[in-house]
Amino acid sequence: MIQEVLKLFYEKKYHEARSLLADINTVDLAESLEMLELEQHELVKVFRMLPKDNAADVFSYLSRDLQKRIIDSITDLELAEIMDDLFLDDTVDMIDEMPANVVKRLLLNADKETRLLINHFLQYPDDSAGTIMTIEFVDLREDMTVREAFTHIRQTGVDKETVYTCYVTDDYRNLHGVVSVRTLLLSAPGDRIADIMDTQFVFVRTLDDQEEIARLFDRYDLLSIPVVDNEMRLVGIITIDDALDVIQEESTEDFVKMAAMLPSDIPYLETNPVIHARRRIPWLLLLMVSAIFAGAIIDFFEESLAAMTALYAFIPMMMGTGGNSGSQAATLVIRGLALGQVVPGDVLRIVWKEMRVSLIVGAILAIINFIRIALINGSVLLALTVALSMMVTVVLSKLIGCLLPLAAQKMKMDPAIMAAPVITTLVDAGSLITFFMFARLIFNI
Amino acid sequence: MIQEVLKLFYEKKYHEARSLLADINTVDLAESLEMLELEQHELVKVFRMLPKDNAADVFSYLSRDLQKRIIDSITDLELAEIMDDLFLDDTVDMIDEMPANVVKRLLLNADKETRLLINHFLQYPDDSAGTIMTIEFVDLREDMTVREAFTHIRQTGVDKETVYTCYVTDDYRNLHGVVSVRTLLLSAPGDRIADIMDTQFVFVRTLDDQEEIARLFDRYDLLSIPVVDNEMRLVGIITIDDALDVIQEESTEDFVKMAAMLPSDIPYLETNPVIHARRRIPWLLLLMVSAIFAGAIIDFFEESLAAMTALYAFIPMMMGTGGNSGSQAATLVIRGLALGQVVPGDVLRIVWKEMRVSLIVGAILAIINFIRIALINGSVLLALTVALSMMVTVVLSKLIGCLLPLAAQKMKMDPAIMAAPVITTLVDAGSLITFFMFARLIFNI
Repeated sequence: MIQEVLKLFYEKKYHEARSLLADINTVDLAESLEMLELEQHELVKVFRMLPKDNAADVFSYLSRDLQKRIIDSITDLELAEIMDDLFLDDTVDMIDEMPANVVKRLLLNADKETRLLINHFLQYPDDSAGTIMTIEFVDLREDMTVREAFTHIRQTGVDKETVYTCYVTDDYRNLHGVVSVRTLLLSAPGDRIADIMDTQFVFVRTLDDQEEIARLFDRYDLLSIPVVDNEMRLVGIITIDDALDVIQEESTEDFVKMAAMLPSDIPYLETNPVIHARRRIPWLLLLMVSAIFAGAIIDFFEESLAAMTALYAFIPMMMGTGGNSGSQAATLVIRGLALGQVVPGDVLRIVWKEMRVSLIVGAILAIINFIRIALINGSVLLALTVALSMMVTVVLSKLIGCLLPLAAQKMKMDPAIMAAPVITTLVDAGSLITFFMFARLIFNI
Repeated sequence: MIQEVLKLFYEKKYHEARSLLADINTVDLAESLEMLELEQHELVKVFRMLPKDNAADVFSYLSRDLQKRIIDSITDLELAEIMDDLFLDDTVDMIDEMPANVVKRLLLNADKETRLLINHFLQYPDDSAGTIMTIEFVDLREDMTVREAFTHIRQTGVDKETVYTCYVTDDYRNLHGVVSVRTLLLSAPGDRIADIMDTQFVFVRTLDDQEEIARLFDRYDLLSIPVVDNEMRLVGIITIDDALDVIQEESTEDFVKMAAMLPSDIPYLETNPVIHARRRIPWLLLLMVSAIFAGAIIDFFEESLAAMTALYAFIPMMMGTGGNSGSQAATLVIRGLALGQVVPGDVLRIVWKEMRVSLIVGAILAIINFIRIALINGSVLLALTVALSMMVTVVLSKLIGCLLPLAAQKMKMDPAIMAAPVITTLVDAGSLITFFMFARLIFNI
């Protein structure tokens, strides 16, 4: 569809192009603009053809790069209009990631009140409620009637990020209750807000962690949540679309950390190789150091091993099974912590569970290996060595796997870093020692 | 707070208990009931004390176990009332997981229309739109005025899962447009729905995949989405709370699969050890088989290795670095696929990116290892062997790591199974062969 717009545009049929543009979904339009790789002057021309009440909306869905290119080419007047139409949370996000000269121009073209608010919002720490909240909410008063509330919503609603939950405040901005448009619709026009509002509402504070807030949306099926300061004054709201973004970002961050990388906000294909490499090398180096330790163990047992070189062939299996068993347990605990299904206080229940699981898993793997090795290698002693080490390795790995993420959480670290790579590397050494010790004992070497 | 309720309850102050119960948030109340482990008769008594218009809501948040216990103890009349108040999607979910005798009783106490719908909804395949949609939506007609629409919402809204997006249909249930309550509020009372409705709306079909649908909510910032059949007739809607659940479940499933386990819907602590073990053993066994293959490689090179036992100590590092490098690439591609940021068609761009990343990462790791080994082991040849193998291993691992998930997606398999454990195990053999081949070549053994 955007192709047709461009065709009309090149044919200078601006009027037709404009009316076609008005029909395209905002999000799709923003994405098309990204993909077309327009020249600077074309980009600005297309952007200027957007219906006025749509321009800021499309703008908010563009990448920082395209936003910057548009800002660079439009007049101060146009910029001021867009900034006026943008929701404050989008403005703050954008300013947070723009180069200094662009930020300066943006702030110059914001009205004074907005400028003060932006500066205030920029100071909230990363990952706090403050950085994803916005101020465009509907506020009502307790002594309003439902009819008056509707009038108020009609008058002010066009600029609000959501009208479906309204916040009941007093002269001091203290939050007394919330009332949904649904409740308003189902109440009599003469009912007083004070009588129908919900006073047992869920709220968060400016410094609360985003991930916890996203969990509240999930738990209570909310569409928005009020953010209050220490004096219970309403300072903003967070809407579910932002909570959804937080959930996706936090999951991605966990995936990335669990695969031994430093996290990043930028999508895979948009990240350049040097940045990719920088995010991957630190953990690889660290894990390499611990792998050297596992190597040292092989060195240490060299004499015993030289007496029985058949043992070497079992190194990959012992290390692999230990690592995989451990990361199974670690992953379940990390995900449980992220979803709030387990907490560090559950440590005993978790250890007890992993204990039993690992005994079952270990026993089955041990029996299968015993039979296999006894039949193929023909040595019952070797089979016994592998089976016993397998049992011990699985149990130890699962215990380490479940304990490390819990310990990390307890120490206010992100449990996601205690995932497969760390567990595997730690467990490798343990598996090898176990295996070689049993071999020494059983073969008396 | 529920503690106070129970106290009042034991003191037989039922009236006070009842009024306190009405104040507790539905979700918190359901959770408290779970945690208190009440006796059967207490549970039913507390449940019966709930305000009528709250009971079904609390019920929908209870675990299957508690739901079953309540169903077992209440009268048919009470059950019919609850079923009447439950949203159809919750009813269907519940019926899907109840034992046959409970299902029978539930169906007997549903009205005929609901019974037919339940049976119809139960037939939608898992993970399809049909299984998470519900029928409690507001439908409007094109020739209604805004005023009439509000009257209609007021009359029917109390039973709807959401009133904020209304669906405009004709006599044949064909969906012509959607209109939000926000638009209704901001329009004049005399405006016709046909003139203000959005005809470029996003919709899905009954058999569409839940994960794709959840992505639409994220992409277009929707609160609900209409579900149509092949003739564009509106059959239901999906609300954002269900989309959020799908997102969390799909991420959890990916985490679990990526750690070599079979997925499950049941939270960690609620799963018994035998089930846990059953979900973990299959992949461990499969991975063990491939580890045996890596062992066979060590066996195969035994002669060369016997000539230079120092090589053994590098096995953990070579295997570890290969596995970790590969799973870094695999994780990024898997997550990119899940978020819709990359598609199998991007394969060339991805390979080209991983190529460059792995050359940088490989070179740095190779140089560091070269210096370390040359200094510590004092053998430039050994240092060269490790450095060269490191370089090749990192490049190969990253290529395998990015290609396998793409291949899985292309073959309609879940890319998440091509994660760390599989990659690691595959790459292990490759790293070992590379390392031993270089050793043979360089040391001429």
